[in-house]
Amino acid sequence: MRLDRSTCISRLVEADFGVLGTVDAERGVHLVPVVFVIVDGRLTIPIDSVKPKSTTRLRRASNVTRDPRASLLVDHRSDDWQQLWWVRADLKAARLGDELWREALAHKYPTYRQVGTVIDVMAFDIVTLTGWSAS
Amino acid sequence: MRLDRSTCISRLVEADFGVLGTVDAERGVHLVPVVFVIVDGRLTIPIDSVKPKSTTRLRRASNVTRDPRASLLVDHRSDDWQQLWWVRADLKAARLGDELWREALAHKYPTYRQVGTVIDVMAFDIVTLTGWSAS
Repeated sequence: MRLDRSTCISRLVEADFGVLGTVDAERGVHLVPVVFVIVDGRLTIPIDSVKPKSTTRLRRASNVTRDPRASLLVDHRSDDWQQLWWVRADLKAARLGDELWREALAHKYPTYRQVGTVIDVMAFDIVTLTGWSAS
Repeated sequence: MRLDRSTCISRLVEADFGVLGTVDAERGVHLVPVVFVIVDGRLTIPIDSVKPKSTTRLRRASNVTRDPRASLLVDHRSDDWQQLWWVRADLKAARLGDELWREALAHKYPTYRQVGTVIDVMAFDIVTLTGWSAS
């Protein structure tokens, strides 16, 4: 049922997509799907020019400026509910350490190998890891 | 790019899984994967006995008692980023209208046809619908 820490980390690292939740003054919670890498134990989320947005001044970014708490959920979906699992990383906004995240992003997501695709990046420390599996 | 309201509704109705975010006093945001139905324009999330939990006194439920604001994200994932889309429903906790949600849940998720699988239910009004598609 509960996943141990090392299983949480490996499933988080292997996941391609997650949902980021930030604290929104007006709406309470702001949810958005994201891609991400983990570099040096720090979770890094790119803001890119690939998935078109109406603005690059993103709500997720202004939210963490006001309140650094955030959460990322990675979940495995299946019609067979015995196969369900999820991992949640509770986060706190952090400063970027070095530039290794560029290589990590390009390695994980081929789209980012093209110059100019990553406009900006958000970095988080992982505060707590929780994981659950149906079987 | 932006999805119109009717497209948001149809994609939301057809989705089997979503991520629910509630306002958490301590962590800021609490995320959890959920299944759901929409009955009479009200989004209804079961608390079941099928996917084992450590407790039935769930954080998501106590959170909405303190702060009724919540959000549900449904997202389509693909290695082809031209296929990505998501729909977000910003929510407000509401009282259950009638018992139609039982039939709706059993119709959408065969597991719930078995008596005793749904322990409780959370109901929400949909405050805002936002949707995005890469193409």
